[in-house]
Order: sequence, then structure tokens, then C-alpha cells
Amino acid sequence: MHINNFKRNNFYKFTKNQFLNQILIDKSLIIKNFIAKNFKVLDISVPNNLKNNSIIFLNKKNINEFIINLNLNNKITIHAFSDSKEIINSKIKSFTFVNDLKLTYNNIINNLIIHPDHILYKDKFLKKKNSYISDSCTIHKSVKIGNNCVIGKGVIIGKNCIIKDNVVIKNAILEDGIIIHENSSIGTTGFGFDPNNLSNFRHEPQIGIVYISKNCSIGSSCTIDRGKIESTFFGHSCMLDNQVHIAHNVTLGNNVIIAAQCGIAGSAKIGNNVLIGGQSGISGHLNIGNNVMIGAKSGVTKNIDNNSVVAGFPAIDIKKWKKMIINQRKI
Amino acid sequence: MHINNFKRNNFYKFTKNQFLNQILIDKSLIIKNFIAKNFKVLDISVPNNLKNNSIIFLNKKNINEFIINLNLNNKITIHAFSDSKEIINSKIKSFTFVNDLKLTYNNIINNLIIHPDHILYKDKFLKKKNSYISDSCTIHKSVKIGNNCVIGKGVIIGKNCIIKDNVVIKNAILEDGIIIHENSSIGTTGFGFDPNNLSNFRHEPQIGIVYISKNCSIGSSCTIDRGKIESTFFGHSCMLDNQVHIAHNVTLGNNVIIAAQCGIAGSAKIGNNVLIGGQSGISGHLNIGNNVMIGAKSGVTKNIDNNSVVAGFPAIDIKKWKKMIINQRKI
Amino acid sequence: MHINNFKRNNFYKFTKNQFLNQILIDKSLIIKNFIAKNFKVLDISVPNNLKNNSIIFLNKKNINEFIINLNLNNKITIHAFSDSKEIINSKIKSFTFVNDLKLTYNNIINNLIIHPDHILYKDKFLKKKNSYISDSCTIHKSVKIGNNCVIGKGVIIGKNCIIKDNVVIKNAILEDGIIIHENSSIGTTGFGFDPNNLSNFRHEPQIGIVYISKNCSIGSSCTIDRGKIESTFFGHSCMLDNQVHIAHNVTLGNNVIIAAQCGIAGSAKIGNNVLIGGQSGISGHLNIGNNVMIGAKSGVTKNIDNNSVVAGFPAIDIKKWKKMIINQRKI
Repeated sequence: MHINNFKRNNFYKFTKNQFLNQILIDKSLIIKNFIAKNFKVLDISVPNNLKNNSIIFLNKKNINEFIINLNLNNKITIHAFSDSKEIINSKIKSFTFVNDLKLTYNNIINNLIIHPDHILYKDKFLKKKNSYISDSCTIHKSVKIGNNCVIGKGVIIGKNCIIKDNVVIKNAILEDGIIIHENSSIGTTGFGFDPNNLSNFRHEPQIGIVYISKNCSIGSSCTIDRGKIESTFFGHSCMLDNQVHIAHNVTLGNNVIIAAQCGIAGSAKIGNNVLIGGQSGISGHLNIGNNVMIGAKSGVTKNIDNNSVVAGFPAIDIKKWKKMIINQRKI
Repeated sequence: MHINNFKRNNFYKFTKNQFLNQILIDKSLIIKNFIAKNFKVLDISVPNNLKNNSIIFLNKKNINEFIINLNLNNKITIHAFSDSKEIINSKIKSFTFVNDLKLTYNNIINNLIIHPDHILYKDKFLKKKNSYISDSCTIHKSVKIGNNCVIGKGVIIGKNCIIKDNVVIKNAILEDGIIIHENSSIGTTGFGFDPNNLSNFRHEPQIGIVYISKNCSIGSSCTIDRGKIESTFFGHSCMLDNQVHIAHNVTLGNNVIIAAQCGIAGSAKIGNNVLIGGQSGISGHLNIGNNVMIGAKSGVTKNIDNNSVVAGFPAIDIKKWKKMIINQRKI
Repeated sequence: MHINNFKRNNFYKFTKNQFLNQILIDKSLIIKNFIAKNFKVLDISVPNNLKNNSIIFLNKKNINEFIINLNLNNKITIHAFSDSKEIINSKIKSFTFVNDLKLTYNNIINNLIIHPDHILYKDKFLKKKNSYISDSCTIHKSVKIGNNCVIGKGVIIGKNCIIKDNVVIKNAILEDGIIIHENSSIGTTGFGFDPNNLSNFRHEPQIGIVYISKNCSIGSSCTIDRGKIESTFFGHSCMLDNQVHIAHNVTLGNNVIIAAQCGIAGSAKIGNNVLIGGQSGISGHLNIGNNVMIGAKSGVTKNIDNNSVVAGFPAIDIKKWKKMIINQRKI
């Protein structure tokens, strides 16, 4: 199992020290002027799930000084200052820094450790297939790639995967035995922004990836957005029908089945063996338990316990929903 | 009318006997060890609509012996055995066999009879258009094909069809005067599977086609799945707006109009002159009569009689639905 | 601001007189036999918004004589005759003529005035990117175009736009700083037709464009249809998530945010700062005010006043909707 060797830490492991014009964090490292030299990046963290030797990102533009500490109990203390006034502290859970960001997933991935079964591509155009494979991809020799595909920088594709025609895959790791059907877009930029009446403001950077575990199948014209900082994640054997939309940082468990035209909003967590009927929607940041069944055309707005069967909008227990429907018609 | 000559039987007619490592059926033929030699395949059948000299597929993995009879009254008797225990009989209506399946639509189509008005393509890359036409396609000389298209093996395209940019067409027959808009996927693999808590199991083979009758128009980013064994079928003059999903084995009558973002689940049958409002969904295996109107955002869960007008989810008579809506707001 | 120079009038300005086998209109010009010579076309009009030196289109096939007057008060008087019987007059608001239509947006755009910052492309194939740029496009030198893209005839793309992979853009003007994500289709043919029980009849011509103002972002697998005669229009800083469908002649204000899988039907007008939740639909020809918020999965069927917050299907005030939902569950 070659892809399993690409653990997150390996994946980001750098073979040499990096000079990064970035926010870098080490245990109790104090960073000034946003520059850290000779720092070994081992991972990308979100502030509330910080790891050693990781980089993090802040989303406030006006910060001009800050201190980040990771103490021995792994408690983070972040102090950020704008003109000597403290504006960020450790209670802020998610933050990104956009100023002068040059480091992206694509830069990080450049020093990837390549497994011997993989072919390392360096900006190769598959002439016969009219498909383009960008720099630093590692694709198992058994993979079939269709026509007019684009495989973005650093993408990893495992054994026996089938990439059908006109597919775009970027910022993604695919384990073995995965099928991506026609015209789908994997690993594209998520929909993050701050609404603003003068001019909407896009959330950047978007540096997370899409990680798809073995034997998943993605239908035609699906859109799977990359994670913002951490990953959009699929467990094994997930089956997506056509025109399914999976937003950034969604987590699917194993054996999840999603019928056509469903949409799952950002950061929702779906358990194992979940069945979702066609044209359903799931709001962002929800937790859907294991073995849940969601009726077609449902709109899920609350967390759902394990083994529940729900329907309707807002989705409720399917028996209650059916009773409600009958009552509505009596009136 | 050149395409009308391509009757189903012609389409599959073999010019020479085939050695098929497959389940093959002849009148009262008994097949052992899944191998039949010197058998002339004339069609692909489903077990409950069996024709002579056809092949069928079974979907049970553990069958190691079986007997298939087609008696003089065209009644099928199928006996399948797993370790000497009979596990399938003629009451089972749909079954597919996945073990060692090498025969696909693509193999069958190799011996197609070509009409003289058509150009037979043999793996041709349209350099100017950056589009790829696979082996054994027959495309009328008047057809316009856009950029970055993929026309799969054996596809037939009739007179004056327009295939716009970035379209994928596979496993399909298009009659005359059809327009397929940008980024649509026609004839892709349907969403058939057996849910399984350990690991979902894909239905294979998927060997049916998409048959689109004359003067149909398919919008942008539509997904039309191939039939599983028999065809996904469109009558003439059907108009599909953008982002419409048509699942495997759906049948549309003539003059069906489907607004944007509708989804029709597998094996549903839609009558003639049916109008479907935007974002509606129709459940699988339903019968929708002729001249039916379905309001926007409806969810159709039951068969609908001819000339009905329905709305809501679950969809009911539109007058009742409107009354219900008014009542709901009074409360 | 180079694109701002391309006002509508400039855009359509002809550098020489045109011979058009078309319906042309001048102040009090009487056109016979559908032919007008030496006529300077300055714009394309709809009959109820007529401008001088514009062309209009009629959609009745059987007209064989007509008179169009634009009097000094800008009141239109149109008289159209079929076999000496008057069948169209000025009260008819929208009409298109399909007979022998050769003039399209593509013809009109041929004489475009090019700004010096732009590169004028003449049927260029970007070999390295595998993308095709059609005749008469003007694309700012800073624009990034991905792989497998198609840029149709006469398209204008402003400074710092990013066109990602497998995108099709036709019949469109993009101002500065716009991002179009993967697999989207911009400027494709709208869904206009006359339903007919014998054979549906497509509305033609479709000659309008898509005009997208600066800093908009369009997600993956979106479909934005061209206007029928006038434009489909986006104000600045609009943000569309993935799989959004915008029909012909929709107008979006500034700062509109549309979540995934929404659909907006033809000719709807959306105000400034409108927020639309995922999987919502808006019916055709509606007016949605400024600062409106529309809950996810809503179906909007009526005009909505400024500053309203609505939800449900049919969409109503969100407080009423929430009360209604609670009441429904009590029963």
C-alpha cells in the first residue's frame, strides 16, 4: 500500500531547511517581522490544532507584531498586535494571514518523498491523451488518465485509479482504486469570503488539500473543494453520484453514499455508512453520525445522531416527517 | 433517415462468431463454466425481456453453476447454484454477473454496420479542434464538433448535430439535429451499487447506451448516464436546460422540457409533452404520464397520471398544494 | 481602467456600413423585404427599449411586411403584417425574428475598437496550455488562462483575470480581476423555446452577451447563459459558489453572494449586497431588492423588497417561516 506511506507528516516533510517569508511556529518560538530563517516545516496547522514545526496562517491584515507560544501542555498562547494594541489572542480559533503570502501547498509539496512505484512527472503533456500533468506529480504506473485532463502540481494518484475525460484534479491525494468521472473538478478553491457591502473579500490563502481514500467513486460534474488549511477528507469506498458538491474541509467517513445533486457545505462531518438521497443539502459545520440515512431533497440544519433516519426541510425524524406531511394534507 | 437504419439488432449484429468468456444464452442453451463458444450474439437482454441469441449478465458473485432456459413460450427459467444450493430462479428480474467480465458495449460495437453517409473514424484526433474521436465512431459529415471534446468508442452522431466545447459523449447514439451544450457528459457510467457497511460494491457491467432521438437539445453541464443493460432513451424534440441530471435507464417521451438543475433518478419513465420546472427531482422507477406539468422545486415520489399538474414535495395536485400552502400560513 | 472604455455603444460601433440581411431600424425608417442597405448599426435593441440605429429581432415566422417607426418622443410604433393582416403592433414587448438570420453577436463584434493594453487574438491556439482563443478576442496581457479552455469569438477579458482549467467563455465581456473556476461555461446559449406538442421550437437568435463587472468570482461547474438580445449582467464583486446556474438576461447587482447549486431563472433582477443560501431557486422575471437575504433551499416566487430576509418555498419572511415550521411540527 504505497499511498498509506504518505502520511501527512511525510507528505509535508522537507528534505532541507526552508527560508520562508512566512509565519512559522516552533515550540515557544517568537516570530518577529513575519520572517523565520532555517526553520524546518513539518506540517500546516490550524491554530486550535497546533503541531510542532508547523506553519499557521492569520487572516488579519493589520497585524504588525505578534508572539506565538506553544507551552509544554500544548496550550497555545497567541498575542497579535496592531500598532501596539493587542487584537488577537488564543481564543480566536481560526485565522489566516493574507499579506505577502507566497507559500502555498504547491511550494510545500516540492520536496515530497516519492515512493518507488510512482512515476514522478515534471510538467508533462500526455500528447496522445491531450492531457496535462503539472510539476511534481506522482502517479502510479497503473493509473488511466483520460483526454483533456489537468493534473495540478504535486498531485498524488494511487494504484489502479481511473481518471476519466475532461477531469481537473489539483491539490489532492488519491489513494488506490479511485474512479473520477467526466468533467469533475477535484481540489478547486473553496468558497470562503467575508461579506462586505462595499466589496466582498476573498479568504486567502486556501492551502488545504483533498484527500480521497481508497475505492471511492466520484460521479460526473462533481465539484470537490480543497480544504482551506487542513484537508477535505473522504474515507474509503465513498460513492458520489453526478453533480454532487462537496465544500472545503468537509469530512466524509467510510462507505458514504451520496446521490445526485447533493451539496454539503463547508466543514460538515459525515460519519460512516451514511446514505444521502438526491438533491439534499447539509449545512456547514454540522456533525452527521454513523449509519444515518437522509431522505431525498432534505435540508439538514442540525447535528444528527448515529443510526437516525431523517427527511424534509428542516430535516427531522422520517416518521415524524411523514406524519406531518399527512396532517398538512388533511387541513 | 440514416440513423433509423441503426436498429438495435443491427447495432449489435456480429459479423462473425465470437468467443466470449461470458454468460451467453440461446434458446434452451445450457451454459456451464461461464463459457460458450461459437455463439452469435445478436443483442443484449435483461432477463425479464429476453431475446434470442442475446447475452445477459448476472450480479451474484458466488454462483458456480447455472442453467438458463428459454422455452417455446418465451418464458425464462433460470436456475443458478452456489455450492449445489439453488440461489437464483426465474423470479429474479434483474441480475448482473461481474466475475471476469471482459465483454462490454465497446467490444460488442466493434462489428457495427456503417451507413454510407457517415464517416467512420478510427482513433482520430481533430488537431484543429483539439478533440478526440475514438475508434469505430460514425459521425455524419455535417456534424460540428467543438474544442476539447471526447467522442468515445463506437458513438454514432446523426446529421446536423452540434457538439459544443468540452463535451464528452460515450456509449451513445444521437439522431439528427441534436445540440449538446458545453461541458456536458453523455453516456457516462450510472450510479449503481450495493450498499455495504464494509465496502460499497459497484454494479457492473454497465453496458447500456444513451439513445437520443432527433432535434433534442441538452444544456451545459448536464450529465446523462448510460443504461445499465438496456438504453437510457430520449424521444424527439426534448429540451434540457443546464445542469440537468438524467440517471441510467431513464426514458423521456417526445417534446419533454426540463428546466435547469432537475434530476431524474434511475429507470423513471417520463411521457410525451411533459414540462418539469427547475430544481425538481423525480424518484427512480416512476411512471410520469403524458402532458404532465411538474412545478419548480417539486419532489415527485409517486406515479403521475396523464394530464396532471403537480407541485410540492412530495408532489401533489397543484390546486391542493396551493390550498395547503395558504393553510400553513394561516396557522 | 481599460474595460470601462468599452461602453456598450463603443462595443457595437461599426467602422463601416454594413449590408445586413436583417431587420434594421433607424428613426422613422420603413423597412421592406427585411433588407436594409448602408445602415450603421450602433446597438442591439429590444423593441420596448429601442435606441437609434439599432437592430431588433422579431420572432414571428409568418411576417412578410412590416413598418417600424420611432417618433420624436421615442414612442415606438411597430406594424407587422402577415398576408396583409396586421399581427404585431407596439404592444408586443418581446419578439425575435428567426428567418434567415445571419447576423449574430459574432458578426457585430468583428469591428470592435481595441484598447492598446489588450492583445488582439486571431484564432490562436495556446499550444503550451492546450487552449483555444477564437477570432477577434481582446485579452489583457496580464490574464492567466488555464489548460483546455475555449475563449469564443470576440470575447474581451480585462486585467488580472484568472481563467482556470477546462473553462469555456463565449459571447462575454469580463472586466478586471475576475476569477472563473474550473469546468464553468460562460456565455452559452440560453433556454428559450416555445413549447409545442408536436415539436418544441427553439427561440433564436440568441445574440446577447454576458457582461461581468470587476472582481467577480465564479465557482466550478457554473453555467452562465448569454442574454437573448440584451445582456446577462453581473455587478462588481459578485461571488458565486460551485454549480450555480444563471439563466439568460439575469441582472445581478454589486456584491451579490450566491452559495452552491442555486439557480436563477431568466430575466430575474437581483439587487446589491444580496445573499442567497445554497440550493435556492429564484423564478424568472422577479425583482429582488437590495440587501436581501435568502435562506438556503428557498424557492422565491415573488418580488422581494429591500432589506428583507426570506426563507422556505414559496419563500416568505424568515420569522413567519420559522413560526410556521414550529406549528407544523406541533400538529
